[in-house]
Amino acid sequence: MTSSARTASARKLVALSGGVGGAKLVLGFSEVMPAEDLTVIVNTGDDFEHMGFSISPDIDTLMYTLAGLSNLETGWGRAEETWSFMDAAAEIGGETWFRLGDKDIAIHAERTRRLGAGQSLSQITQHICRQLGLDITIVPMTDDKVRTIVETPNGPLPFQYYFVRERCRPTVTGFTFEGAAAATPQTAFVRALGAPELAAIVICPSNPFISIDPILSVPGVRDLLAKARVPVIAVSPIVAGRAIKGPTAKMMTELGLELSAVTIARHYAGFLDGLIIDQTDGSLAGEVRGLGVAVEIEDTVMTNLDDKIRLAKTAIEFARRLRAELPDHRGSGHDRQYA
Amino acid sequence: MTSSARTASARKLVALSGGVGGAKLVLGFSEVMPAEDLTVIVNTGDDFEHMGFSISPDIDTLMYTLAGLSNLETGWGRAEETWSFMDAAAEIGGETWFRLGDKDIAIHAERTRRLGAGQSLSQITQHICRQLGLDITIVPMTDDKVRTIVETPNGPLPFQYYFVRERCRPTVTGFTFEGAAAATPQTAFVRALGAPELAAIVICPSNPFISIDPILSVPGVRDLLAKARVPVIAVSPIVAGRAIKGPTAKMMTELGLELSAVTIARHYAGFLDGLIIDQTDGSLAGEVRGLGVAVEIEDTVMTNLDDKIRLAKTAIEFARRLRAELPDHRGSGHDRQYA
Repeated sequence: MTSSARTASARKLVALSGGVGGAKLVLGFSEVMPAEDLTVIVNTGDDFEHMGFSISPDIDTLMYTLAGLSNLETGWGRAEETWSFMDAAAEIGGETWFRLGDKDIAIHAERTRRLGAGQSLSQITQHICRQLGLDITIVPMTDDKVRTIVETPNGPLPFQYYFVRERCRPTVTGFTFEGAAAATPQTAFVRALGAPELAAIVICPSNPFISIDPILSVPGVRDLLAKARVPVIAVSPIVAGRAIKGPTAKMMTELGLELSAVTIARHYAGFLDGLIIDQTDGSLAGEVRGLGVAVEIEDTVMTNLDDKIRLAKTAIEFARRLRAELPDHRGSGHDRQYA
Repeated sequence: MTSSARTASARKLVALSGGVGGAKLVLGFSEVMPAEDLTVIVNTGDDFEHMGFSISPDIDTLMYTLAGLSNLETGWGRAEETWSFMDAAAEIGGETWFRLGDKDIAIHAERTRRLGAGQSLSQITQHICRQLGLDITIVPMTDDKVRTIVETPNGPLPFQYYFVRERCRPTVTGFTFEGAAAATPQTAFVRALGAPELAAIVICPSNPFISIDPILSVPGVRDLLAKARVPVIAVSPIVAGRAIKGPTAKMMTELGLELSAVTIARHYAGFLDGLIIDQTDGSLAGEVRGLGVAVEIEDTVMTNLDDKIRLAKTAIEFARRLRAELPDHRGSGHDRQYA
């Protein structure tokens, strides 16, 4: 970190996020800081084309969560949704394994139409956010097409086929991010990482393999994080040896990884400065610190808005502490050690 | 008509149709003859692309009517429809002047997806018909893109902008069928007109300008009708100086045409053999016959299924009578005279 960077007011935050878990923390951030200071980089690896629509599940989950439109019961889709489209689609032999709600389709149709007209995913996302009254900048990790492929003993499965159609039943042996090698990080993503007012980069408690790794697979991103002049901190999605939600724990087991916050610290090795682990995992702090990663202990289970706000505040404060400790040579490579 | 043609069993019917009015008569035909003998040629001039969907209103009206899915109250769209999509589209600034129901969208999305995959409109229509359990052959007039443009004193308006957005308020000075000159009649259309078992060609009581003229605008169609070896009969959509439905009367007035079944007979001059006029218009029979067009008088207002069946039976019987009177030289040009 250069001294000129140090003098700039450090108030901006970049959050890397997948869907549900990430959206919860982002909602927390949105409650404790000005919207214009928050840039959310969203995984688009599980985007797909289905029934003629271009669907971006993680972008939508973020938009719906922040706009107060999300279905809190199901954890996906919109509240007060209706299903007439699916019923009618089934009548004409349409695929029904991926449930598209009638309201939800309004977003998919608009996105599909605008993509067809040559607009970029980030332009479209920004437009829809503004229409929904959201001031936070939500940026797809790339405007290029990257698709997460789940490797299984029976061959590769496109992500939504694994996740929704097969309900995560197949054993996972690995992941491929199709198209990633040719992708470019979205301009606003790169710009946000280089902003002089940047205070921290936060990796949300999203699934590391299917939500964060696709973002990291875009050429240049790992390097930008490693060379960042501000702390990169993560919130562990593994609590007390279990995943809060989704297939993270199953995947880690199948990949032969220990179900622990330590695995998360190892997974982000090379750019991670700090990890927030759950209060029930306090005994792991030493092992994480041994990896050269600072530790903050907090109640990380977000069940209500207060939880989200508390965790967001903890992350901001943790980053502030780490900034003060950050070695002067940051920006010229990754060479850190925290107590 | 050649003698070989005369010996074939005349049982098949080709109906030219627009939306609502045509669908009523086609439903009548479907009740009194085997589905495999009925081919409906449908106007696609009011098809359009809207909110990212490829919409074919007249095809859909026919499918919904025949499948018992149509909304009898509104005269368009589906019964028991919901409107969540439109509500959500409005939230993000979408256009709301063309109401797309949630169930209705299932058809539009499937059509759009298949067109995008390179299938033809006729293939897609056939597929959806089969899925809806319809055995009748519904054939778009052409697989090429033809778009009805309404000429007004303030310039041209794409059909749906005139019809739905402007609610037919602008004065009509004429019509253009964009793309028609380069279009080819659908193969099944041409084949149906040449079938040895063909008994009649029926022009449904649809709007002549915006429902039937687009079909006639496809190169070759007028000639095929003029040279048909079976009677071409029409049902007048004008009853007692009024149109049963829609803007037909308003258009005729603006175009300086007399609001009368006689105008319909004149409009189809060159290929029309017989016209079914309403019982209230009996006094016009002489004038129509004076144009060389045979006349059948019937109650043509179709309010219930019995009405539709009666009118369908009348049309079939009328055609049978005309076939018996048809001059031997038919097939070598149009040169008819009926009493």
